[in-house]
Amino acid sequence: MYTNDLMLRALKGEKLQRPPVWMMRQAGRYLPDYMKLKEKHSFFERIENPELATEITVMPVDQIGVDAAILFSDILVVPQALGMEVQMISGKGPVLPNPVSSISQAQTLPKPDVEEKLHYVMDAIKLTVKTLDKKVPLIGFVGSPWTLFCYMVEGHGSKDFSKAKAFCYQHPSAAKKLLQSITGVCIDFLNAQIKAGVAVVQIFDSWGGLLGPEDYKTYSLPYIDQIVKGVKGAPSIVFAKGCWFALKELAATGTDGLGLDWTINPKWARAQVGDNITLQGNFDPSKLLGQSKDIQKECMLMIDNFGTQNYIANLGHGILPDVPVHNAKAFVDSVKNYQV
Amino acid sequence: MYTNDLMLRALKGEKLQRPPVWMMRQAGRYLPDYMKLKEKHSFFERIENPELATEITVMPVDQIGVDAAILFSDILVVPQALGMEVQMISGKGPVLPNPVSSISQAQTLPKPDVEEKLHYVMDAIKLTVKTLDKKVPLIGFVGSPWTLFCYMVEGHGSKDFSKAKAFCYQHPSAAKKLLQSITGVCIDFLNAQIKAGVAVVQIFDSWGGLLGPEDYKTYSLPYIDQIVKGVKGAPSIVFAKGCWFALKELAATGTDGLGLDWTINPKWARAQVGDNITLQGNFDPSKLLGQSKDIQKECMLMIDNFGTQNYIANLGHGILPDVPVHNAKAFVDSVKNYQV
Repeated sequence: MYTNDLMLRALKGEKLQRPPVWMMRQAGRYLPDYMKLKEKHSFFERIENPELATEITVMPVDQIGVDAAILFSDILVVPQALGMEVQMISGKGPVLPNPVSSISQAQTLPKPDVEEKLHYVMDAIKLTVKTLDKKVPLIGFVGSPWTLFCYMVEGHGSKDFSKAKAFCYQHPSAAKKLLQSITGVCIDFLNAQIKAGVAVVQIFDSWGGLLGPEDYKTYSLPYIDQIVKGVKGAPSIVFAKGCWFALKELAATGTDGLGLDWTINPKWARAQVGDNITLQGNFDPSKLLGQSKDIQKECMLMIDNFGTQNYIANLGHGILPDVPVHNAKAFVDSVKNYQV
Repeated sequence: MYTNDLMLRALKGEKLQRPPVWMMRQAGRYLPDYMKLKEKHSFFERIENPELATEITVMPVDQIGVDAAILFSDILVVPQALGMEVQMISGKGPVLPNPVSSISQAQTLPKPDVEEKLHYVMDAIKLTVKTLDKKVPLIGFVGSPWTLFCYMVEGHGSKDFSKAKAFCYQHPSAAKKLLQSITGVCIDFLNAQIKAGVAVVQIFDSWGGLLGPEDYKTYSLPYIDQIVKGVKGAPSIVFAKGCWFALKELAATGTDGLGLDWTINPKWARAQVGDNITLQGNFDPSKLLGQSKDIQKECMLMIDNFGTQNYIANLGHGILPDVPVHNAKAFVDSVKNYQV
């Protein structure tokens, strides 16, 4: 069905000659052509205009040669669908000027019709799928309920999201109610994305690692579990940054793939989760700022450690804006040239 | 020798009725009396004036009832001693306007006489020790060489310190030379602190968790190892935030204590490091923003899990500025009221 279906075959656990490779944030600021569009169009224009979103999504497939595309969008479209204002402020990141601050607010967010509220995402998916013309599969995504909750309560990025965590400790029932509302939207949204044409979905738990293991089981894991079980018609990957302590539990959700950050030793991870799940990751993004020859060497070593079955090569977090294009390409080419 | 020597006895592994307790950043912004001094005196006045540093250091002993004092100072006095300018910018944190950016700079930093360059720290220690009058022991500290390197190369705080990491990947020999220079200063500085009267030293590897396990063994661990072995006359504690993957190796340095962040399960940590080292930590600092009754309950559970031998109760990172004083006190009192 796809000219290059390595990504899907890796998620099915097929034995491959070499793993597929893509990079988190691969359609982003390290690409000069992206920067040109960034100068001309605001963040929301870029994600809300299907032509622009498609152009950006396809860029790394054409220019870097990755084995999968991931839709250019943002996890904060879900809070927007929930009626919250989201601003994207250059140099500061996302700001939600009216964060959730009371029990009643947490309990009364309206349940949106995502097909209507986020129709532009589905339009972008349809156009991207058409443009990709079955060359490689397209990945859709959502933020995890916990990670979205962090932004919705804190109101902006933070190194500890202490306000969001304090809300949980002060009002645990209201926090769970809000997490549950977000979860419903995430499930609807991913299923709408699949209906529109994405072949894989990824759930980003970017801030799960701020929770201790017990809190993770209370405020993040159960909602990810619901999403994994609620997604129909496409394999899922969960990437929970900093959540080394919950790998077993995340694997037990039944997700097809588990993304790993670069602090996790591949063999240690495999021992945690067993052989029936595909692992994804985990090259340190900062290493793409080094020398090409070291990137090649370390990339080979990474694949040696993960093996070529049940494995998708990726970074351990998003690609950094100041990575030279030739180094991103060196990483991708190293995977593609891998010989068992 | 001390009226309250629980801290020292915990580090020796003595069997205790209850663990000692102190809190990282206990002399800080959650204390109203500290805030009054902060309004009147700049950051550098507060750390360079022995009377002020002493007053701040002693505050949590008198007001919160902790079992140890930790000198009010900053890890960045070491880069200052190495001739670098450090500015403390309100709302932004530390800025080093002329960071290390070349191989030659990394290799040619002067070796300072710390007793002379940082005499004000030793003066503050002497006055604090006198003021404490053997009530509780005083803890001295340094930043780990890797953590100091991060600031010295990046020039400011960062969520990924990608510039500092890129320097390592681009110029590994120069990076190691700089790390070695910092290490020498750290050893001299801790020994000078001990000579001036601190009874325990702690090494803060705040940014070790940004390195993958192999890079940690290259760029952080060997230098911490040298410090632990080079410190004479006082027990040491290593707190390496986010370094769950290196606990065995950190314990193998021979340090007396190992600080843990709140993502680490106490029993898991104990299984990693064996019974002959004191563990310290690891209450989630955000939990002090919750309800006192929950703090008490969770604190009891934490001690149940760590046990009362070879254990020092603490937070898993610094206390947050917006913690109510009564909650900080609830935490400390919970430990003090612990009954086996």
